[in-house]
Amino acid sequence: MQIIGTSLNRVDAKEKVTGQAKYTGDLVSPHALVAKVLHSTIANGMVKSFDLEEAWKVPGVIDIVTCFDVPDIDFPTAGHPWSTEKKHQDIADRKLLNTRVRFYGDDVAAVIAENEIAASQAIRKIKVTYDEYMPILSVESAMKPGAMAIHEERPDNVVVHSNYEVGNFEEAIEEPDLIKIEGDYQTPIVSHCHIENAFSFAYMEAGKIVVVSSTQIPHIVRRICSQALGIGYGDIRIIKPYIGGGFGNKQDALTEPLNAFLTTRVGGRPVKLEYTREETFACTRTRHAMQFHIVSYVRKDGTFAARSIDAYSNQGAYASHAHALVANAVNGFRMMYPVGAIKGNAYTVYTNMPTAGAMRAYGIPQIAFALEAHVDDIVNKAGFDPLEFRKKNMMQLGWVDPITTITCHSTGLSECIEKGDAYLNYTKKRKKYAKQSGPIRKGVGMGIFCYKTGVYPISLETSACRMLLNQDGSAQLQMGATEIGQGADTVFSMMAAETLGFTMDKIHILSKQDTDVTPYDTGAYASRQTYVSGMAVKKTAESLKKKILEFAGTMLDKDAWDLEIQDNQVVHKNQDKPLISVAQVAEEACYSLTHSNHIAAEETHHCSDNTYSFGTCFVEIEVDIPMCQIKVLDIVNVHDSGRIINKQTAEGQVHGGMSMGLGYGLTEFLKFDPKTGRMLNDNLLDYKLMTALDTPELHAEFVETVDPTGPYGNKSLGEPPIIPVAPALRNALLNATGVAIDSIPLNPEKLFFAFEKAGLFN
Amino acid sequence: MQIIGTSLNRVDAKEKVTGQAKYTGDLVSPHALVAKVLHSTIANGMVKSFDLEEAWKVPGVIDIVTCFDVPDIDFPTAGHPWSTEKKHQDIADRKLLNTRVRFYGDDVAAVIAENEIAASQAIRKIKVTYDEYMPILSVESAMKPGAMAIHEERPDNVVVHSNYEVGNFEEAIEEPDLIKIEGDYQTPIVSHCHIENAFSFAYMEAGKIVVVSSTQIPHIVRRICSQALGIGYGDIRIIKPYIGGGFGNKQDALTEPLNAFLTTRVGGRPVKLEYTREETFACTRTRHAMQFHIVSYVRKDGTFAARSIDAYSNQGAYASHAHALVANAVNGFRMMYPVGAIKGNAYTVYTNMPTAGAMRAYGIPQIAFALEAHVDDIVNKAGFDPLEFRKKNMMQLGWVDPITTITCHSTGLSECIEKGDAYLNYTKKRKKYAKQSGPIRKGVGMGIFCYKTGVYPISLETSACRMLLNQDGSAQLQMGATEIGQGADTVFSMMAAETLGFTMDKIHILSKQDTDVTPYDTGAYASRQTYVSGMAVKKTAESLKKKILEFAGTMLDKDAWDLEIQDNQVVHKNQDKPLISVAQVAEEACYSLTHSNHIAAEETHHCSDNTYSFGTCFVEIEVDIPMCQIKVLDIVNVHDSGRIINKQTAEGQVHGGMSMGLGYGLTEFLKFDPKTGRMLNDNLLDYKLMTALDTPELHAEFVETVDPTGPYGNKSLGEPPIIPVAPALRNALLNATGVAIDSIPLNPEKLFFAFEKAGLFN
Repeated sequence: MQIIGTSLNRVDAKEKVTGQAKYTGDLVSPHALVAKVLHSTIANGMVKSFDLEEAWKVPGVIDIVTCFDVPDIDFPTAGHPWSTEKKHQDIADRKLLNTRVRFYGDDVAAVIAENEIAASQAIRKIKVTYDEYMPILSVESAMKPGAMAIHEERPDNVVVHSNYEVGNFEEAIEEPDLIKIEGDYQTPIVSHCHIENAFSFAYMEAGKIVVVSSTQIPHIVRRICSQALGIGYGDIRIIKPYIGGGFGNKQDALTEPLNAFLTTRVGGRPVKLEYTREETFACTRTRHAMQFHIVSYVRKDGTFAARSIDAYSNQGAYASHAHALVANAVNGFRMMYPVGAIKGNAYTVYTNMPTAGAMRAYGIPQIAFALEAHVDDIVNKAGFDPLEFRKKNMMQLGWVDPITTITCHSTGLSECIEKGDAYLNYTKKRKKYAKQSGPIRKGVGMGIFCYKTGVYPISLETSACRMLLNQDGSAQLQMGATEIGQGADTVFSMMAAETLGFTMDKIHILSKQDTDVTPYDTGAYASRQTYVSGMAVKKTAESLKKKILEFAGTMLDKDAWDLEIQDNQVVHKNQDKPLISVAQVAEEACYSLTHSNHIAAEETHHCSDNTYSFGTCFVEIEVDIPMCQIKVLDIVNVHDSGRIINKQTAEGQVHGGMSMGLGYGLTEFLKFDPKTGRMLNDNLLDYKLMTALDTPELHAEFVETVDPTGPYGNKSLGEPPIIPVAPALRNALLNATGVAIDSIPLNPEKLFFAFEKAGLFN
Repeated sequence: MQIIGTSLNRVDAKEKVTGQAKYTGDLVSPHALVAKVLHSTIANGMVKSFDLEEAWKVPGVIDIVTCFDVPDIDFPTAGHPWSTEKKHQDIADRKLLNTRVRFYGDDVAAVIAENEIAASQAIRKIKVTYDEYMPILSVESAMKPGAMAIHEERPDNVVVHSNYEVGNFEEAIEEPDLIKIEGDYQTPIVSHCHIENAFSFAYMEAGKIVVVSSTQIPHIVRRICSQALGIGYGDIRIIKPYIGGGFGNKQDALTEPLNAFLTTRVGGRPVKLEYTREETFACTRTRHAMQFHIVSYVRKDGTFAARSIDAYSNQGAYASHAHALVANAVNGFRMMYPVGAIKGNAYTVYTNMPTAGAMRAYGIPQIAFALEAHVDDIVNKAGFDPLEFRKKNMMQLGWVDPITTITCHSTGLSECIEKGDAYLNYTKKRKKYAKQSGPIRKGVGMGIFCYKTGVYPISLETSACRMLLNQDGSAQLQMGATEIGQGADTVFSMMAAETLGFTMDKIHILSKQDTDVTPYDTGAYASRQTYVSGMAVKKTAESLKKKILEFAGTMLDKDAWDLEIQDNQVVHKNQDKPLISVAQVAEEACYSLTHSNHIAAEETHHCSDNTYSFGTCFVEIEVDIPMCQIKVLDIVNVHDSGRIINKQTAEGQVHGGMSMGLGYGLTEFLKFDPKTGRMLNDNLLDYKLMTALDTPELHAEFVETVDPTGPYGNKSLGEPPIIPVAPALRNALLNATGVAIDSIPLNPEKLFFAFEKAGLFN
């Protein structure tokens, strides 16, 4: 490998730091109309009527659309590939604007006006009459017999209930001398907090609706818009410029379907629909709050005999990604320690909360918190070594998941654990910190995880790529896969250069996706792109190279199979001497008077495999007991993500995930008024996101395996770094104080009550 | 044929009439800086120095660039495909800004400012010191021995001199009893007068220079910009939105290379460079003025024994398309009447006039005026029937040009002549009008032409096309070939629908070209696109259809070769019963869980053929002798352009060409100050373009042949309609008055002197 594995600056670095990079907001026509959405001020009810008289009087108002004016079409919003099988399709449970209001902030009307002020004024002047019902905010109240149905189609408010059993659980727990350990764990609703709010603008051109949007999934958004409006896919065009983060929130259709509809109301004039920070918090998607009840039966030799989990996921008002997340969580429960009998049971439940959707690591941070907390409870109670216990029970090379058939093609998890232990001197410190007293105490903690790469076989994994040879011997690289800040464009460019035998400066990646011309790809999620789309890059580069060498062969009167490309030069295989440059081949191919040929390649990769990546977090903290404060002294994530394509961007991913994991573990949660269901901290002042000042020095380490199924030996890396941080923190707190807190965030309020209960203030 | 041959509205009709269609000006960023060019106020000389002091003081000026600041690179501007053979390459004879000034209006400096006013003010405040030389405006003065060299590399000012001889001319003219007829003919410099002026804007993105431009030839402009700036093709990106006409002026790099350079001076900020109407007239390109001396030796049986031509073409200041036009003219002289010995001799000469470039029909309106005037002189002097004489001598089916090898694959010219004669009752009227007196007289005239289709074998003919199957069974059609108002998008869509078996609503053509993603095509010129690019559409549609049917075959468990598509349905060949819809195939191809495949096709057509189209104009006029006015009473063009793809748009082309031909024959010419070389009528008030009020009812008729080399039996149509109009008018005037005027336009001034000389006022 010449380029894969080196440490390169991002291909978009210069553009982004100089402000040249164009985001949705930079592309809005100066003549665009402005749309604003009226969100419901009740969490559960029915719109009876609107009084629009005062709103219409606001100068500059062009149109007012209410939930009584939109197409009577229920559509799904989840950023999943579509399925032609009805039972695998996402749940279609909302309209462009909703008469049946299901959360505080539901979309009930929209105004299009000449400018922002007029639109906002008109929104404020719309009067709505509701039939109001009691908000149902928790899973418990939603599942209570006789609870009101939030969606008619689900009278019990259960979106989906699923369960599995591996081995015979009831038999397994009959084994004598088992230690039974039980626990309840809870994770909070949190917000993605991407820098760029939900934002799109839409217009009509050539009879088509064009939506420019800050999305992770342009091709999927096209499908959803066409379904929501009841028109052909070919009549919708989605353009995705650079985006200011998504973290899964933009793996959903957010403003796009309504915006697509609004432009049709004004004859195709451009309509801008930019959510405020408050709307982005309250009216887009959240991370699912989950509750887990885990029971483990452990043998005295430190192996699991049996384990069971009951999981409850608070879906909020609309299905969005629905059960996929808690299903992923309970599957992850099985996969991490695939020994003994295992039983999983999961519910996804509608409530009158904001809709939960995809968020980085898709259910796994939730389960990892619960499971790794639970494992530390086991080792503490039974006196096992936490690292040895994990190593003994965790997934091993060659393991095949009996349910999904996903195989462990490679694992470096043991080395990850050893590297983390060595980095932090964990084993020694853990013992040392076990018996402290006084107000300031230290602790170390850790947690591990496994994570799949993409969504096969649950769902379709497909990706296409196109390359064009420019006349100067450089290549255009056109991906359906999306750059969402994670560095995808950089690694795709490296992959293309590697396979083509080009230098990096000869690869021109097109960052902007345009569904009219961009090859199909489902988009950025599930840490799938380097694995699935990376293979599409590899196949397309191979196809392009073959065509280049065939043309070169005719120029050189040599067999193409005997030629290779090295550093932009055509050479004999296994010889370095340049025969002709790719630039010369390209020029001749374009301008030959006898057989011009515009060399391009376009290939689909249909992916029928999956693989696990692994990792661990080791953290050392200082706990100020009187102040109920945790200070992170040192933290390291060690990842096995197969071969690392680009060290620099890989570290960036890990740092970002660790920062997010620290927030998840320590500070972040969304707070709601228990009476109305209104979100109370819907902004970056009141929502306690980690800032640069809050964040300690972050350390990222890698154990490089070479996965045989990855295009370049690589496997998932994008999402995983968030996963092990919260349980490591919780376990460090346990080590420091002996207090096991089984819900996050571990904020001062929670620590206060836990410490008080544990008598630490005495 | 289901769709080819029907009469459909343009696919862009609605967008264009509603104002939704986006042109370059609609896409300029509101934050764009504004550039203005300082044009020389002398026609021949050398810039000695600039005084920029006052210009820099204008508030809002960002940068001033002079001819001393630009790269020392000579580049060509002609919109020809490049040639890897040096001798076939266009002449590189200008820089981005020129120190050696060669015409009144040459580019010597540019200002970039925050707004239009500041840029214009600063331009006015730049003081230039020149070394001034005598302007050389005519071919005669440029070729005079001892004349100053306008370009050092051409000391005799002859850009190119070429000649040919077919048969043995000297021997042929020795045949006894030949009638020798001789004439001198002149055509004027005229302007394209496209509605949208020369206009581009440029910025940098992702390290690339992006130029959005009103051009006919985006891929060629990319190559020229890269040559002008000395950077790789891959580092330049050209975007071509809808354009407001070009007529050949935009088959040249105009503002783009300088604009590409200017944005690099301001860190990639967007820079708009919009020429005014006056600049577009004086500083872009013109149609070559040509002078011809023709000698014919005719047998008494009405056949040519020998013909010779000497042609002189006034190139103006820079080579641009250079000799290609007069070479085309003298080749056309041979091709139209390919009997007897023929001798051609042609000069292209630099002068200090504005640069002449491509314009509709590329030298053929010039030669057709001369030749068809000359033929009417022959028939009048020798007493032949004008139609019979032409039919006897004109190109016949199967004829192969001995020089270019272009073959007459189809001809309907005889029927065209008969149809025109019948329409106007020409033969009868011609006799009737031959002997009139009085101040108001009528006359009929006609002329014929032949016209090639594309540029093979003189130059490269290549075109690529890409199609993508959308998930709803519609297809994206992506062309490198350009819509420039001529209706290309409509006929390409029809071709795609025809070959795919789709209905028209299932074809989504992408009108905007973007060299980063658009398949290669040389662009809109030489009436090549329906013939060359049309074949690329056909090949690509066949390839896409094959892939669709292969996928359908696996779904239906049938052999693909036995399937066909009709009306968006997959059917058994020769059976109408739908088996499955293309929409179902497309959806399954996209979402199959076992073998998803993003169906796309991309094909190059390397064209190695050419074919002739033919036509004629018949016109009846009324001449007011005292007023020296010509009024067109009736006019018809009859064309053999092979199979007509779309009657409606074909008629549109013919009407547009006829209107342009009327202006060329009657009113248009550019006037220059003989001392300074300054253009005097550089605007639409003083330049006498035909307006709607000046234009009579225009009649278009077709004789449909099926050309065996055209993708759908079609051949050139875009340019030809202008060709036969001017000679028909001249011959009608001759019929009406007996006065043969051998230069155009036939405006009152010219008629006055000719009538006076002929004694018509006596």
